Amino acid sequence: MRQSQLFGKTAKEERKDASLTSHRLLLKAGFIRESVAGRYFFLPLGMRVHNNITDIVREEMNRAGAQEMVSPVLHPLELWQETNRDNAGNFGLMMVEDKRGAKFALGGTAEEMFVDVVRKFQISYKDLPFNIYQFSQKFRDEKRARGGLLRVREFVMKDAYSFDRDTEAFAETYARMAEAYTTIFARMGLTTKKVLADNGYIGGEYCHEYVVDCAIGEGRYLQTKDGSYCAHEDVAEIRLIPMNPDEEVRPLKTIDQPAWVKSMEDCEKHYGEPRWRFLKNVVYKRIDTGALIIAGIRGDLEVNKTKLEKVVDAIELLEEADEEDLARLGTKPGYVHSWGHEATYVADHSLKTVHNFIGGQKEETTDTIDVNYGRDFTADIEADIVLAQEGHESPYGKVLTEARGIEGGNIFQLGTHYSGKMHDAVYQDEDGSFKPYYMGCYGIGIGRTLATVVEIHHDARGMIWPRSIAPFDVHLVSLAREEATREEADALYRDLSSTGIEVLYDDRDLRAGEKFADSDLIGIPTRLIVSEKSNAEVGYEVVDRATGEVSRIPKAALIKTLK
Amino acid sequence: MRQSQLFGKTAKEERKDASLTSHRLLLKAGFIRESVAGRYFFLPLGMRVHNNITDIVREEMNRAGAQEMVSPVLHPLELWQETNRDNAGNFGLMMVEDKRGAKFALGGTAEEMFVDVVRKFQISYKDLPFNIYQFSQKFRDEKRARGGLLRVREFVMKDAYSFDRDTEAFAETYARMAEAYTTIFARMGLTTKKVLADNGYIGGEYCHEYVVDCAIGEGRYLQTKDGSYCAHEDVAEIRLIPMNPDEEVRPLKTIDQPAWVKSMEDCEKHYGEPRWRFLKNVVYKRIDTGALIIAGIRGDLEVNKTKLEKVVDAIELLEEADEEDLARLGTKPGYVHSWGHEATYVADHSLKTVHNFIGGQKEETTDTIDVNYGRDFTADIEADIVLAQEGHESPYGKVLTEARGIEGGNIFQLGTHYSGKMHDAVYQDEDGSFKPYYMGCYGIGIGRTLATVVEIHHDARGMIWPRSIAPFDVHLVSLAREEATREEADALYRDLSSTGIEVLYDDRDLRAGEKFADSDLIGIPTRLIVSEKSNAEVGYEVVDRATGEVSRIPKAALIKTLK
Repeated sequence: MRQSQLFGKTAKEERKDASLTSHRLLLKAGFIRESVAGRYFFLPLGMRVHNNITDIVREEMNRAGAQEMVSPVLHPLELWQETNRDNAGNFGLMMVEDKRGAKFALGGTAEEMFVDVVRKFQISYKDLPFNIYQFSQKFRDEKRARGGLLRVREFVMKDAYSFDRDTEAFAETYARMAEAYTTIFARMGLTTKKVLADNGYIGGEYCHEYVVDCAIGEGRYLQTKDGSYCAHEDVAEIRLIPMNPDEEVRPLKTIDQPAWVKSMEDCEKHYGEPRWRFLKNVVYKRIDTGALIIAGIRGDLEVNKTKLEKVVDAIELLEEADEEDLARLGTKPGYVHSWGHEATYVADHSLKTVHNFIGGQKEETTDTIDVNYGRDFTADIEADIVLAQEGHESPYGKVLTEARGIEGGNIFQLGTHYSGKMHDAVYQDEDGSFKPYYMGCYGIGIGRTLATVVEIHHDARGMIWPRSIAPFDVHLVSLAREEATREEADALYRDLSSTGIEVLYDDRDLRAGEKFADSDLIGIPTRLIVSEKSNAEVGYEVVDRATGEVSRIPKAALIKTLK
Repeated sequence: MRQSQLFGKTAKEERKDASLTSHRLLLKAGFIRESVAGRYFFLPLGMRVHNNITDIVREEMNRAGAQEMVSPVLHPLELWQETNRDNAGNFGLMMVEDKRGAKFALGGTAEEMFVDVVRKFQISYKDLPFNIYQFSQKFRDEKRARGGLLRVREFVMKDAYSFDRDTEAFAETYARMAEAYTTIFARMGLTTKKVLADNGYIGGEYCHEYVVDCAIGEGRYLQTKDGSYCAHEDVAEIRLIPMNPDEEVRPLKTIDQPAWVKSMEDCEKHYGEPRWRFLKNVVYKRIDTGALIIAGIRGDLEVNKTKLEKVVDAIELLEEADEEDLARLGTKPGYVHSWGHEATYVADHSLKTVHNFIGGQKEETTDTIDVNYGRDFTADIEADIVLAQEGHESPYGKVLTEARGIEGGNIFQLGTHYSGKMHDAVYQDEDGSFKPYYMGCYGIGIGRTLATVVEIHHDARGMIWPRSIAPFDVHLVSLAREEATREEADALYRDLSSTGIEVLYDDRDLRAGEKFADSDLIGIPTRLIVSEKSNAEVGYEVVDRATGEVSRIPKAALIKTLK
C-alpha cells in the first residue's frame, strides 16, 4: 500500500480528552476515528490489525474444535423474555421494533439465540459435545463511554457457546477453552492470567477473566504471591478468623456515649479499641423500587457492592442511600441501627467473628455494647459481602496483594442457567430421558484486545506492534531526492510485495523527520529506509521498531531478512 | 471436520413453503436456519461458504486498490436527516434510540457514514482518489421476506464508496470496479452481465446491476440479441417513432359513441383502429399524501410505475388509484379525461408520436376525436414513463427481448448526490477552492451471492459447489465395516488434513445410501470413498460431484490428485 493513497492520516495534534494511551495513539496514528461517543470507525490501518486479531482467534477456536457460524444481529425479544433478561437490571439492552410490530433486542451477548438455534434440531447425547461461535456486532447501551476502544457501545465480539451432557464433559470443554484463550492472547504478545471473576448479568456458577496486568486497567484483582489465588475484587473471598474467641460473651448493655462520638475514628478514640470491635452498617437503595437494604459488617471491613447486589438479586441496581433515604428509616448518617429499621438486613459472615461488639443501637448520647450477632440480633440474609483488600488473607491463608489489569476475555460456566429457563432446550440422553444442555460461553472483544495490545506495547514515540498482528510487515520509507533513488524505492516496493511481504510504502513528499515520526507512531515492526545513503549499493538500513536496533542489509539478503 | 461432530444436520423432510431451489437445498443440507422470517443463522457449513465468498470479494477489492475499513452499525440519525433519507419513501429504515435519547438508523447502506468519516479529515486533491469498503450487517425492513437468502431483512453486505475529483477521474474508478465485479462473480462460477438499472433510493445519475441469467430471478431485463443494449425493466428505454407523421392534423371534434364502448378492446372493435390511435390514462395515488397523478400514454403502451415514481419524486410511494379515488376526481374507471381533472398530469413522450388521437374527454355516449397533444392539451410534466417490453426497439433501433435474472451486485454513480447535500463534504482543489467529492458506491450481498450460486449450480440431488467457495475440498465418506478399514479412514482423514486439504469426514454410523444422499445434497466437489472395496490396496474411489465421473486413485497419487 502506498502511504500517499492510504485513507486515514496521522494527526499533528492529540485529542485532549483521550486520557488512555491506546485511545490517544490509535486516534493520532489514524487507526480509528470516532463516529459518536463509544462508536468507532476502524480506518484501513486499524482494520488490518482488527482482521489479524480475528484470524488468530478463528484459528485457535477452530484448533480447539469449535465451529464458526453466525446468528442474526437482531434477536427476537421473545427469546430474551424467556430468560427474563429483557429487563435484567441496569444492563444496557437496546430494542428496536420493525414496521410489523415485531420487537428485537440488539444483543450484548447471544446465549438465547444460540440455545434457540440448537433447540431447532432434535439433538441426542450422540451429538454432544459441540462448541459453536461467531464474530458479530454487539451493543451495550453504556451510560458513559470513555477510554477509546476499552469501553464502547458497539463492538465486534467473538462469542462461543458450548453444549455438553454434564458437569464432567463440560469440565473438559472449559479446560480446552481456557488453554485456547491463553494461546490466543500469547500469540498477540499478551501475557494473561486467569482470574476468578463476577459473571454479572450472564449468570451461571463461576467464570474467569483473562487479565493483562496493566496499571491503567479498570479491573482490580487480589492475588497471592505464589499464584495459588487470583480473583477480581468483585468476587475475591478472604479468610475470616475469630478475632477474640477466648473472650467471654457478656450481656448486652446500653451505656452513655458523648455526643461527639459519631464516626468510626471517634469510636476508636473514645473507646481505645481496634476497628474490628465495632459494628458497621451501610445503607443501600434499589434504584428501581427504592427499597432499602442495610448491610452489617465488622468495623474494619468494607462492603462489596457487587457481592451485595447478587445476594439481594439486584444486579447493577444498588446505590448508597442518601440522607433523605435514611430519614425514611427514621435515622441519619452514623446512627443506623443494626436491627429494628424497616429494611432488608444483610449480615456479612464477619459478624460471627467477634464477641461483644460495640454499637448497634446508637442514639444521641447512648449506644449499646457487648452486642453479639445471633444472640442480640440476626439478619434477613447472611452472606459473604466483604470487599477483599490488600493485606487480607486468601481463603487458603496466604496474604493478598492488589493488582490492576485489563480484562481481555471471559469464559463462563453457564450450566443449565439458560437451557433450564428456555423451553425445549434439551437433548435426549442414552436412557431416553430429556435433559437440559450443560452450557458454557466464551467471549473476546476484538477492539478491546487491539487496544490492550497498544497499552502494553508502546513507547513515548508511538505503538510497537507484535509481528503477528501488525498492520504491515515492513514500513518502506523512501527519503529519495533523486529520480534514480525514487525508482529504486518503487522497484523495491513491487519486489517485496510480490513475495507476499505486506509493505506500507511511504512515498509521500515529506521531510525525513516527519516520515520517521509517523513511522514510529504507526509502529510497524520493521522499517526499511531507501535513500541516497541507504540503497542497493551500500546496503539498506533496516530498523527494528521494538529494539531500535539498526542493521545494514545487502540487497541479496533483504527478502530473506524481512520474511 | 468429523461429520459426527458437525453442528447442523441434514433434514429428512423439505420445507413446504420454500419455493426456491436455493432456499430449499440450503435449509435441507443444514447450511442455514431461519431465526424469524427474513433473518437467518448461517450454520457451520453455510458459514464456511460465506467466509470463502467474503475472502474472494476482499481479495478482488484489494487488488482493485480499495481499502477495507468498517463503520459502526448504528448510524447517527442526524446524518440521514442531512440527506433527507430518514424518511425517503417506503424504504425500510429501522431506527433505535439509546437511553440518552440519541437516535440511530440501522443502515441499509452507509453513504452518509462514509461521507461523515471522510469529512472528519481535511482532504485535498492530492488525497484523491480513494475507495473504501467494509463488510457489515445491513438491515431492510422489508414488508415481505420470502425466498430464503434472496430477500432478507438482515444480511452482510460488502459496500464500497469511492471518492474522486471529477467525472473523468470517476470514470476510471467506475470502470475498475466494473471489472472487479465481473472477476468476483466469475471466480464463484457465476457469469454475469452488466445491466443498466434503477438506482432507487440510492440516488445519482446512473447505475448498473450485475445480473446472472436465471429463470427464477426477480429481475426482468430487456436486451438486444447483439448485447448492444441491456437494461432492467425499471429503466429500459425504447425508441419511439412517429406513427402517422403524414396524416393531416384535423380539428378536435366531439362525436357520439355507443355506451358499450368502455375498454381498449371495445374501442378497437368500434373504431377498427389499432391501439396506438387511442389515448390512455392511468391514475395513481401517492400513499403518503393521497394526491392523484394521471399518467397519459399512447394506447399500445404501458406505464412504468418505477419511472413515474422518479418523475413525480415519490419513490416507492405510488399505487394504482381505486374507484373511490376516481370518484374524488368526479369520474370512474374508463372515463378519466386527458385534461381538466384536479390532478397532476404526466404525459409520456409517446403522446407526441400520434396525430389525431381518439379519446380524451369520454362521457357516457360521447368522446372526442382528432385530439392532438400540445394543441388540445398539455401536461404538468412530460417524461419517459413507458414500460419497455419484448418486441419494442432499443434506443438504437434493435429489437428487445426479455430475460429474467438474479441481481448479484450493483455499482452506482453518485456524483455529488451525497457530498452536495452534506455540509463540509469537500476537498480542496489545486486552485484552493473547495469542491464536493465526486462519489460512487458498490455493493455485493454475500448471502444473496451464495444463494445465487446454488440457483445456478445444483441438480436434482443437491448442490454442486464450485471449488473456489466450497465448504470443504473433499468429502471423505467412510463405509468401513471392519475396524482396520475404519482405522484406515481415520488415518486418511488426518493425512489429508495435515496437507492443508479441507476435509469433511463422514464418520457417522449410517447406511451407505444415506451417506451418499447427504454427500450429494451438501455438494462438496470431490467425494473420496473408503471401504473394504475402496482402499489403499485396490486404490480409492473418487467421485466428481459435478460430472459424476468416478476414478480409482492409488494411494500414492491421492494427495496430488486432491490438492
